[in-house]
Amino acid sequence: MTDDGLELLHDFELRKPRALARAISYAEAGRGAALVGALYSKAGRATILGLTGPPGVGKSTLCAGLVAKARSLGKTVGVVSVDPSSPFSHGALLGDRIRLVEHFTDPDVFIRSMASRGHLGGLAGATADAVLLMDAFGKDVVIVETVGVGQSEIAIADLAQTTLVALQPGSGDSIQVLKAGIMEIADVFVVNKSDHPMANQLRREIRSTMEMLEWEGWVPELVATQALSGEGIDELWNAIERHAAYLNETGEIVRRRRDAFVHQVRQLAMGRLAARLEGALRDGDTGDLDPYAAADRILATF
Amino acid sequence: MTDDGLELLHDFELRKPRALARAISYAEAGRGAALVGALYSKAGRATILGLTGPPGVGKSTLCAGLVAKARSLGKTVGVVSVDPSSPFSHGALLGDRIRLVEHFTDPDVFIRSMASRGHLGGLAGATADAVLLMDAFGKDVVIVETVGVGQSEIAIADLAQTTLVALQPGSGDSIQVLKAGIMEIADVFVVNKSDHPMANQLRREIRSTMEMLEWEGWVPELVATQALSGEGIDELWNAIERHAAYLNETGEIVRRRRDAFVHQVRQLAMGRLAARLEGALRDGDTGDLDPYAAADRILATF
Repeated sequence: MTDDGLELLHDFELRKPRALARAISYAEAGRGAALVGALYSKAGRATILGLTGPPGVGKSTLCAGLVAKARSLGKTVGVVSVDPSSPFSHGALLGDRIRLVEHFTDPDVFIRSMASRGHLGGLAGATADAVLLMDAFGKDVVIVETVGVGQSEIAIADLAQTTLVALQPGSGDSIQVLKAGIMEIADVFVVNKSDHPMANQLRREIRSTMEMLEWEGWVPELVATQALSGEGIDELWNAIERHAAYLNETGEIVRRRRDAFVHQVRQLAMGRLAARLEGALRDGDTGDLDPYAAADRILATF
Repeated sequence: MTDDGLELLHDFELRKPRALARAISYAEAGRGAALVGALYSKAGRATILGLTGPPGVGKSTLCAGLVAKARSLGKTVGVVSVDPSSPFSHGALLGDRIRLVEHFTDPDVFIRSMASRGHLGGLAGATADAVLLMDAFGKDVVIVETVGVGQSEIAIADLAQTTLVALQPGSGDSIQVLKAGIMEIADVFVVNKSDHPMANQLRREIRSTMEMLEWEGWVPELVATQALSGEGIDELWNAIERHAAYLNETGEIVRRRRDAFVHQVRQLAMGRLAARLEGALRDGDTGDLDPYAAADRILATF
C-alpha cells in the first residue's frame, strides 16, 4: 500500500471523522484494492437496504424517513445515492437530495452520492466499495438508493439484503416497472403517496401481478406510505425487520452475502478484462476480418 | 456452417423476401458468426443513421418521415428499432411503432424491433448484426432508432455515420439530455413539435449549450420539424446529406466505419469474456478472499 493509503487506513481504523469520505473517494478513484483488502474482514455486520423505483416516486423522501427511523433506534446510517447520470433520467435530482439535508449535520449519518466513471468495476463496483467501507466503518444500516433508470435498479438487488421497490399511484411508470421483471427483485413494495386517488388501484395491480408468479420462501410485502408526512415508515421498517428475520432464520442471508460478493468480484474482473481488451483492440491487427473473426483473433492474444 | 445456415446464406444472396428477417433472427439467437463472416464483404454501402432522444419526443414519427423521404428518392430502407426494455422507460412503445405501419406493406422497407438478451454481444451486438445484415442485403439507408433510456443512446453513435438527436420543447427531459454529454454524439439536433410555444426557447438552449463546447470539424446542425405533418423532413434530410458530404470529403467516413467495426468487435469479445468469467466464478475457490484478491485469483485462471 502507498504511504497515503496506509495513513488513510490508520485514520479509518481510528474512526476519524473524515476518514470514511476519504476512503470512498480513494476507492472511487480506482485505488481501493489494498484498502478494501485490509478492511474486508471488518465488514459484514451492517444491514444493507436497497431502495429503487422510477423517478419522482419520492425515493429520497422515503430514504430520509428510513434514516430518521434508524436514528430513533440509535442506529448509525450510511446512504449511498447512486446516480448513473443517465442523459434521459427524469426529475429534479438536486431537489430530491434536499430531502436528506436535515440529516447532513448528524455525525452518525453519512451520505454519499456516487456517479463514478473512473472505477474499474464501473458504477456498480464503486457502489459496492462504498457499501463495504461504510459497513467496515461501523455503520449499522447502509441504504443504497438508485435514482437512475436502466439496469442499475436490477444490480441493487445483487448488493442489498433487502430490496425495497417504491411505486407511485397514477403513474404509467409503475406499471412498466411491474411488467419489466422487477417483481423478482422486490422484497418489499412501497406504495408511496398513498393518499393519491389511484393508490388502491396500484395496490391491486401489484397484487394481481404477484399472483401471476410462483413464490417460494419470502413473498414480497406491500406497505403504503406517505413519506413526506412520515406515515407508514414504521410499518415499512417492520416489514424490513420481518424480512431480515426471515433471511436469518432460513440461512438465506449467507446466500445473499455470497451473491453480493460474487457480484462484486464479477464487476471487478469484468473491469480489468475490459481494460485489457481495450489494449488488445488498439494493438490488434484486424483490418481484413469480419467482426466475429476479429473478436476471435483478439481473444486468442489473451 | 450448419446446413440451415448454408441454406439461409443461399436464400440471402438470392434476396429471397424472407431471408433478411430469418438472417437477423439467426444472428439474434447467437448463431450469426459464420453468416456475418460470409456476408461481411457485401456490407459497407449503406448510409447508417442513428435516431435517438427522450421518450415521447416523436422518434417513430420522425423515423416514418425519414423512411417516406428516402422512398421518394427511390432508396430502399431498413429500420432497426432498439428497445432495451428498460423497466423505467416511458411512453406508449406500441403506440409509437404504429407510426411506421404505413410502411409495413412496402417490400422495400424492412422494419425490425430488437430487444435481444440472447446475443453474446448483448443488445448492441445484436443491433450491429442487424445493421450489417440489412446493409449486406442491399438496403440503401439503415435507420437505428433507440426507444430507450440509459447508455444505448450513446452506443448508437458508435454504430451510425450520422446521429440525429431529437428533442422536445417544454420538456425537462431535453434539458437533461443537453446536460448529459449527449451534445458530443449529435451530428444533427432535431427540435420536433416545432409549433410548441417553447420551441424557440429550446433552440436557444441548444445553441447556448453548444457555445460552451469547442467544435472542430463538423458543427451539429439544428433542424425544426413537425414530424406528424411532415414539415421540416426535407430540411432534415438535407442536413443529413450535408453531413454525409462532410464525412466523405474529409475522409472521416473511414474513421467512423472503423470505429463502428471496433465497437462491434469489442461487444463480441466482451460477451465471450463475460461468459468465460461466469464459468470461472462458478468453479473458482474465493471463499477466504476479499473481492479484489478474488478477482485477481479468478483472472489468473484465464
